[in-house]
Amino acid sequence: MRFRFVFFPQRLTQTLTQTLMGALVLAVIASTGFADEGMWVFNNLPRQQLKDKYGFEPTDAWVNHVMKSSVRFNSGGSGSFVSSNGLVLTNHHVGADTLQKISTAEQDYYKNGFWAKTLAEEPKAPDLELNVLQSIEDVTARVNAAVKPEMSAPEAFGARRAIMSTIEKESLDKTGQRSDVVTLYQGGQYHLYRYKKYTDIRLVWAPEFDIAFFGGDPDNFEYPRYDLDVCLFRAYENDQPAKIEHFLKWSKAGAAEGELVFVSGHPGRTSRLNTMAALKFNRDLRLPGVLNFLRRMEVLLQQYSQRGEEQARIGKEDLFGIQNSRKAQLGQIAGLQDATIMARKEMAEKELRARIEADPKLKATYGTAWSRIEQAKKVQAEIRSEYSVLESGQGLSGELFSIARTLVRLAEENSKPNPERLREYGDSGRSSLELKLYSTAPIHEDLELAKLTDSLGYLAEQLGGDHPIVKKVLDGKGPATRAAELIGGSKLQDVAARKKLAEGGKAAIAQSQDPLIKLALLVDPESRAVRKKFEEQVMEVERQAYAQIARALFEIEGPSRYPDATFTLRLSFGTVKGYVENGKNIPALTTMGGAFEHAEKHANKSPWALPKSWHQRREQIQAKTPFNFVSTCDIIGGNSGSPVINQAGEFVGIIFDGNIQSLVGDFIFDETQNRAVSVHSSSIIEAMKSIYGAESLAAELGK
Amino acid sequence: MRFRFVFFPQRLTQTLTQTLMGALVLAVIASTGFADEGMWVFNNLPRQQLKDKYGFEPTDAWVNHVMKSSVRFNSGGSGSFVSSNGLVLTNHHVGADTLQKISTAEQDYYKNGFWAKTLAEEPKAPDLELNVLQSIEDVTARVNAAVKPEMSAPEAFGARRAIMSTIEKESLDKTGQRSDVVTLYQGGQYHLYRYKKYTDIRLVWAPEFDIAFFGGDPDNFEYPRYDLDVCLFRAYENDQPAKIEHFLKWSKAGAAEGELVFVSGHPGRTSRLNTMAALKFNRDLRLPGVLNFLRRMEVLLQQYSQRGEEQARIGKEDLFGIQNSRKAQLGQIAGLQDATIMARKEMAEKELRARIEADPKLKATYGTAWSRIEQAKKVQAEIRSEYSVLESGQGLSGELFSIARTLVRLAEENSKPNPERLREYGDSGRSSLELKLYSTAPIHEDLELAKLTDSLGYLAEQLGGDHPIVKKVLDGKGPATRAAELIGGSKLQDVAARKKLAEGGKAAIAQSQDPLIKLALLVDPESRAVRKKFEEQVMEVERQAYAQIARALFEIEGPSRYPDATFTLRLSFGTVKGYVENGKNIPALTTMGGAFEHAEKHANKSPWALPKSWHQRREQIQAKTPFNFVSTCDIIGGNSGSPVINQAGEFVGIIFDGNIQSLVGDFIFDETQNRAVSVHSSSIIEAMKSIYGAESLAAELGK
Repeated sequence: MRFRFVFFPQRLTQTLTQTLMGALVLAVIASTGFADEGMWVFNNLPRQQLKDKYGFEPTDAWVNHVMKSSVRFNSGGSGSFVSSNGLVLTNHHVGADTLQKISTAEQDYYKNGFWAKTLAEEPKAPDLELNVLQSIEDVTARVNAAVKPEMSAPEAFGARRAIMSTIEKESLDKTGQRSDVVTLYQGGQYHLYRYKKYTDIRLVWAPEFDIAFFGGDPDNFEYPRYDLDVCLFRAYENDQPAKIEHFLKWSKAGAAEGELVFVSGHPGRTSRLNTMAALKFNRDLRLPGVLNFLRRMEVLLQQYSQRGEEQARIGKEDLFGIQNSRKAQLGQIAGLQDATIMARKEMAEKELRARIEADPKLKATYGTAWSRIEQAKKVQAEIRSEYSVLESGQGLSGELFSIARTLVRLAEENSKPNPERLREYGDSGRSSLELKLYSTAPIHEDLELAKLTDSLGYLAEQLGGDHPIVKKVLDGKGPATRAAELIGGSKLQDVAARKKLAEGGKAAIAQSQDPLIKLALLVDPESRAVRKKFEEQVMEVERQAYAQIARALFEIEGPSRYPDATFTLRLSFGTVKGYVENGKNIPALTTMGGAFEHAEKHANKSPWALPKSWHQRREQIQAKTPFNFVSTCDIIGGNSGSPVINQAGEFVGIIFDGNIQSLVGDFIFDETQNRAVSVHSSSIIEAMKSIYGAESLAAELGK
Repeated sequence: MRFRFVFFPQRLTQTLTQTLMGALVLAVIASTGFADEGMWVFNNLPRQQLKDKYGFEPTDAWVNHVMKSSVRFNSGGSGSFVSSNGLVLTNHHVGADTLQKISTAEQDYYKNGFWAKTLAEEPKAPDLELNVLQSIEDVTARVNAAVKPEMSAPEAFGARRAIMSTIEKESLDKTGQRSDVVTLYQGGQYHLYRYKKYTDIRLVWAPEFDIAFFGGDPDNFEYPRYDLDVCLFRAYENDQPAKIEHFLKWSKAGAAEGELVFVSGHPGRTSRLNTMAALKFNRDLRLPGVLNFLRRMEVLLQQYSQRGEEQARIGKEDLFGIQNSRKAQLGQIAGLQDATIMARKEMAEKELRARIEADPKLKATYGTAWSRIEQAKKVQAEIRSEYSVLESGQGLSGELFSIARTLVRLAEENSKPNPERLREYGDSGRSSLELKLYSTAPIHEDLELAKLTDSLGYLAEQLGGDHPIVKKVLDGKGPATRAAELIGGSKLQDVAARKKLAEGGKAAIAQSQDPLIKLALLVDPESRAVRKKFEEQVMEVERQAYAQIARALFEIEGPSRYPDATFTLRLSFGTVKGYVENGKNIPALTTMGGAFEHAEKHANKSPWALPKSWHQRREQIQAKTPFNFVSTCDIIGGNSGSPVINQAGEFVGIIFDGNIQSLVGDFIFDETQNRAVSVHSSSIIEAMKSIYGAESLAAELGK
């Protein structure tokens, strides 16, 4: 699996909603790190462990430097500053969203790669936002103080939402920085994260898709690998390359076998200490549903791509993302279906619960947490179909509906005070929301039509054809006819039309004759109702219960734990190290020469066809240059593009993948075979110099 | 959709079970033909209608000749005798099952086509059985007499099963012919069909896949089409070409626009007079489940095919079938999700029920039929997951498990008297069952492993990971580990090992250490239990209720109705006629020259790449030769390969497809745009002569 944090191909509100859902529902505190386990928050690093095992003691300056060199791609990945003049390195598959959006039938950046030899040639991303963490502040006490013990769950949810939005707004007003209150330990702690934000991002360099994803789907998850899964952007401020104080120096030799390395990035979501009830919910309900939906989208996109070359180009990035997600989810469910793994999880839960039961004080305070989570899962099971098709938008798919809903809700939420709004419509996130809402990225009408047609069918399947909302949405027609009417009649492709509707507020929305706006208005009451039920009867109940479990663990074990991943900055550590698979030694590193051998073994046929540029320059390439490598670092989706850093704080590689054994990492870490896969720093330089003739660009790196 | 009757890629017992399920659950009596509607049984043809509308009166000799010239492919399609020396013409995609089975990495008949210039060169199909209908006998009275009114549903089911098996056995013993008691009008009538059977079938000629499926998936369902979707087999008896009395003469000009034509073939399944409860069950439960499973298989097979060229070859035919099915089912569900269509169905039901309610005698006799079907659907909804993963085998996928189950059940059923056995293990079907069970068709272990791994995951998803049968089947391991252990340890690839186990009977099965035999034994009690529940509480209840509805309709309207399709021989009729789509006239016929134009419009790129043979002979081909044509004939999956016949009883074309508008045909017929798509007889001759140099073969046709 490529380690971009992909939800579904829904942008705008869907993504925001799902981020909330993901972070709050599934993230829970995770077990004490032993071995090289852990995705550590920067204000609680495993210093003792690093000292004991590796004899390494990071200074505050080291930590601050690494933190401020790390970049979050809001589209779902990680990256790092690698020069003083704004160069940001990430994966090709993280940049793919932008590469796709700026491509046309005439110039396909995604497929053919690109190099802007001058600043003037660097094309601007239509809606890419990068965040760089500047500070972390613990606001747990203030959040908890706002939620009184006597409050009902709905009251508690409202009070918590209000205080979080208020804290964010105050911080934004005071600092001008993007300010997010982050829920850690599933409610055990609340931290205020302040980010410097860059929204003028331009493409500098990308290799061809065929080398970024060499070996394709069959090799995905496998190791050894031979992928140049990288691309370079540049952050701008005031129309000039941003001046960057904290960027990573380029290591001369790059990662070496046996070396201690760090990964600084943004893992999206883990569920390592989910209760058994939550794991079983995932195994039997959530993941099967997600996988059915992903397969459905995969088949749909393949059909669409077959229509012609231009459709194949348009669908390629979506399809890649869907296939990648499908594999990742399949790995997770396979792990949960393995009785051995489940038994380990069950034993840990039993032990903790036994310790709590044995202590009357602990029992009185924390004893009911598990049954309350179990109850919340029952509610979630009941509402999940309705939630997924309405609120997550799986039954109303496509960019255009997503835009329509955002406009409808924006008007409604703007009429409320900030603390009372849906989280994603708060003041502090407003400019990020508008960046997406007014994006000039192309919207392809035939793809929109295919998606909406299919998803209207999905809506009817999930809720049943006689459900009142299905009847209202389909309006007496079949899915294809209704979708054609909705897409054909909408003007929302036009950014100016969106702005006009947004400026017109509730009145403009109410009077709009745009069929998608009318549809979004039509479903909004039901959609909000199911969201409310979810937030109050699932999310809030779980937050309180998991917070109790977290506190119980702190009481029993002390604070030597890392919180589950929440798409916030984390530091992982580990060793560059091979592994044994079916009795065979898998090496720690591969070489660029090995890529040619691997291609020949597959008769140079797609997806093992090296790009022409590689064949032409074969003689010039130093065959022994390290290409990809594996390490024991603990990573997950969202870590894609994370820099791999040595003890000197230098760049030695970039994460792009995990091996197949790492897929269970969502809920359990096992160092034996789990490996993170990276592109080696030396191969990036070597490719730029010897293949792409980009010596001047290579010279900028780390400077 | 290609009109082969594809269930799922499960052969042997799965297919047999599903045939039963399909025929008995979904087939119901269908509405009176008006327009060119109807799939008519040969002993109740719409003579008056044909006379009134077309002035055509078929003689008994005409009917008998057409019937005996028509061939059923037990693999799921239709065909016809086209020469006195055993030539059988069918679709390439019907022959595909055999083409695939006889292919190897070295010789790919399926992809590259083939022509056996001498009898000695004709390769034998490993397990193909052809059936030719010889006679029809009404046994309704005898079946009904065996089922007493006072019997409970389980008793009635047992009594009916017993009498049907007994009638079949008597007929087999008396005539030596394959004898099937067919349930028509969903229980309204029972007819004994006797078939002459051919099991030594050899391949004579097939064109390349690329012209058989020219236009590929994007063009599938579309018209105009340009497909040579045909291939030729030869039936043998006693190692000599069979001497055939009834075969179709070849029409000199072939089908002409405006002409009355007939289709004589084996439509698999329709549900035209399903009650609303049954239609909604299909819309909201059955079809969504089937589609999820098909998409799952499609993604699996695509992944498998990507592993390498040989895997792509092995997976191609399965993948084709799955995609074809997926499209067909999608068309059906889209129809059911269309409120306009459902309203028509609802109105018809209301009218009939009102007439029954209005007449006290009718009401007393037939009034409760609808509510009983509704109740049966509730039971089916409850058991459908368990039924599909256990009894239909979707949770235990692959040839090898299917073989294991057949062996386990064969031993068990053989120990019972014939009338008490599961239907598919009765004496009359034994030789057909053994033909498949002992087939030498290749079994690919890596594909078996991929399928079983995936389906064990599906089993756990459908029943939940804590279900006792899931725990027993997975045996404490994850799906991949368990599947590897099962496939790796089995000896059932070896036909001799199968024969030995079958001969050893119950003792051999009980002592077998083969892990798949042990697995089949393990799940058999639960699988039989859910089947029993289905048969007694769904199938039998529906059979009685639909029989009442049928009788009510006969009473009200007389016998001028055709029964729903049941994969038995039917005659449809219609006119060669274009249609209007989005205001555009779609012509009735295309030409061979048009194929080149269509290829050029798509830059000759796959799937619009004509085979090399076509390009090489372009100058020799008469461009104006009619290639494909459409007619208003009422067809459905299973009609693939059906001959299109003129009033003189000559061969004028061969059905291979339906247009996209025909997909709702499962439950409603609408002549406006529904069209059957055929290969024109003239193009077959022209291709043989001008492209494939097979003049001698062309000369055999119709002689």
